[in-house]
Amino acid sequence: MNVTVRGRTRHYRTVTFDRAHQAVRLIDQRLLPHEFKFVATRNFRATAAAIRDMAVRGAGAIGATAAYGLAQGALAFRGSDLKRFSVHCTKVYQTLKAARPTAVDPVNAMNAVRTAMHAGRTVAEQQALALAAAEEFADEDVRHCEAIGRHGAKLIRKGMRILTHCNAGWLAFVDIGSATAPMYAAQARGRKFHVFCDETRPRSQGATLTAWELAHQKISHQIIADNAAGHLMQRGEIDLVMVGSDRTLGRTGEVANKIGTYMKAVLAARHKIPFYVAIPLSTIDWHLKSGFEIPIEERDEDEVLGAWGVPAKFSPGSKPSTINHQPSTPVFVRVANAASGARNPGFDVTPPELITGIITPAGIFQPHELWSKRRQLGFHT
Amino acid sequence: MNVTVRGRTRHYRTVTFDRAHQAVRLIDQRLLPHEFKFVATRNFRATAAAIRDMAVRGAGAIGATAAYGLAQGALAFRGSDLKRFSVHCTKVYQTLKAARPTAVDPVNAMNAVRTAMHAGRTVAEQQALALAAAEEFADEDVRHCEAIGRHGAKLIRKGMRILTHCNAGWLAFVDIGSATAPMYAAQARGRKFHVFCDETRPRSQGATLTAWELAHQKISHQIIADNAAGHLMQRGEIDLVMVGSDRTLGRTGEVANKIGTYMKAVLAARHKIPFYVAIPLSTIDWHLKSGFEIPIEERDEDEVLGAWGVPAKFSPGSKPSTINHQPSTPVFVRVANAASGARNPGFDVTPPELITGIITPAGIFQPHELWSKRRQLGFHT
Repeated sequence: MNVTVRGRTRHYRTVTFDRAHQAVRLIDQRLLPHEFKFVATRNFRATAAAIRDMAVRGAGAIGATAAYGLAQGALAFRGSDLKRFSVHCTKVYQTLKAARPTAVDPVNAMNAVRTAMHAGRTVAEQQALALAAAEEFADEDVRHCEAIGRHGAKLIRKGMRILTHCNAGWLAFVDIGSATAPMYAAQARGRKFHVFCDETRPRSQGATLTAWELAHQKISHQIIADNAAGHLMQRGEIDLVMVGSDRTLGRTGEVANKIGTYMKAVLAARHKIPFYVAIPLSTIDWHLKSGFEIPIEERDEDEVLGAWGVPAKFSPGSKPSTINHQPSTPVFVRVANAASGARNPGFDVTPPELITGIITPAGIFQPHELWSKRRQLGFHT
Repeated sequence: MNVTVRGRTRHYRTVTFDRAHQAVRLIDQRLLPHEFKFVATRNFRATAAAIRDMAVRGAGAIGATAAYGLAQGALAFRGSDLKRFSVHCTKVYQTLKAARPTAVDPVNAMNAVRTAMHAGRTVAEQQALALAAAEEFADEDVRHCEAIGRHGAKLIRKGMRILTHCNAGWLAFVDIGSATAPMYAAQARGRKFHVFCDETRPRSQGATLTAWELAHQKISHQIIADNAAGHLMQRGEIDLVMVGSDRTLGRTGEVANKIGTYMKAVLAARHKIPFYVAIPLSTIDWHLKSGFEIPIEERDEDEVLGAWGVPAKFSPGSKPSTINHQPSTPVFVRVANAASGARNPGFDVTPPELITGIITPAGIFQPHELWSKRRQLGFHT
């Protein structure tokens, strides 16, 4: 999507491959929204470290990064012995996989690269096929997000006020995003609307990443505390909820997503506000039979006990645009009582009866339809 | 309640009057939980400034502060001319009232002081009566909170996990608190239970004030992101919700409280978890006929865009108690994207059908019973 730096607007992908330097080029998401900078990883170990250290996050984005990382590792091999090449590639694969062990996208992405490589008869051919397959994975991620946008744009009418939670934007993918795709598509069709970004504590991805994205795309938006959505719904100020998902159960229609999604879904149902989940096909889990089987990661309590930000003046009454925003690195501050601990579940599960529809690259479905449409949705036993 | 500083435990009230220095002595709540310090205001203007600058906050606490401030102003008058004394006292009253114009407690408290004063026939008598009435207001606040504790303690059974939102603790009153009163009473009866403190963004009163209180009272507790309550309820980890209120409508049973309360009430109802509101009588509004008439303060957007904390090391895996907690003054950091704005409603309204009971000093009532019990609850036309 577009980013405007010092008045110049350019299009960027979250992840690209620099052939000249055989480097993976990533927007460093740890510095956003305070600084817009790229990090270039020159070898597969550095690429794995970028995934591990959260320079890149989000299902599609880490999938593409791992695919490029595998190609990068393959390209670095010197020699023509296919057997030694294969041993080397397995090491690359394992290193990248271990960088984010709970995620499924890097594995799917690297499996696609590996399958494509096997058609090559020489090391050089396999290297070329690996890079082509990684590029294809990234391009397919973009096409899937575009398709989500086409289907979802119909739901956004002029003047609507849309709530979103966390970041399921282009930063979480290669481009366009999942929950944001319908917004960008509606904007391209000339529709004006307003987005409320849930702050999304404890990591504040809504206040940092989603708000940054929407600001650069020039979409009208405001950040709200996670506590405020219920009140705004009660007062009739939210017309539509659109979120992403980390894992959607194809058999039941249950949706695992960032902690707090379930609460918004319950409130939306109470106020009869449509609640949509936008997902690429890779997010669907065809195996689990119940949301209670989804492991809910208990993250570090320090995330809840503090916040990341840049030291600033608290200036009640100032307009946001008047805040001085020199690039600067965020620091961690402890907000909470020092002697208190925290519980920090990272995700929750929203049951299908609270979900109006699931927007996929193949169309919009009711949660319980996923299983019957599984062929269309890419499930092959 | 008790505060332990350097291993020594002592009992403190939030607000007291120091007769020797004619000073109002307040716990400086702007520094909590990072520093436990008192501020002594030597004249009524400084007392008004302490209310305005949020050194003291919370219904009962600012009520008692205003009552002491009026007595303090009265005591500062030199001379015996009753008419000039009365003009002076009106000026004091107006100054203190203007310090927090939307609050009702300072007005009620000062009216009680003024009524008591009028029984005096000389300036000296009226001065003495003013101070006695201010002390009585503070003592009555404590007695009311004790009564809330006696009634509410029955609801807390051994091993329960209780969710609370914001700070309706002793820091918000003179002592004991409203939502915390049943917890302290249950603890005094030897019952063990666990409290989840909603962080309560944007001002984080749960993570700072409530967690600090509970830690000093040695009550088992953990802070959670406001997003996490729904998930914990879904997994059966919350047995009871107990919150305070800024304004409760005596005619309808609607409860205005800190933003986010409504969302917790909706979730509690869905999961059949009892939801109780603890209030002193001064919180009941007998006039308004609908929650939609309650003005919802739209607070400064900077509160949502940032956070207050002390610079610290982000140390995943560390135990909270290992965090170095030297006293230090919190700083403001900007968390959000600099070019984005925020919506920041400060309160929301919970409808009576979501409320299991309202715990008052006169007993526990269903929300719709308040009006029929209005005599018992202190309403006199």
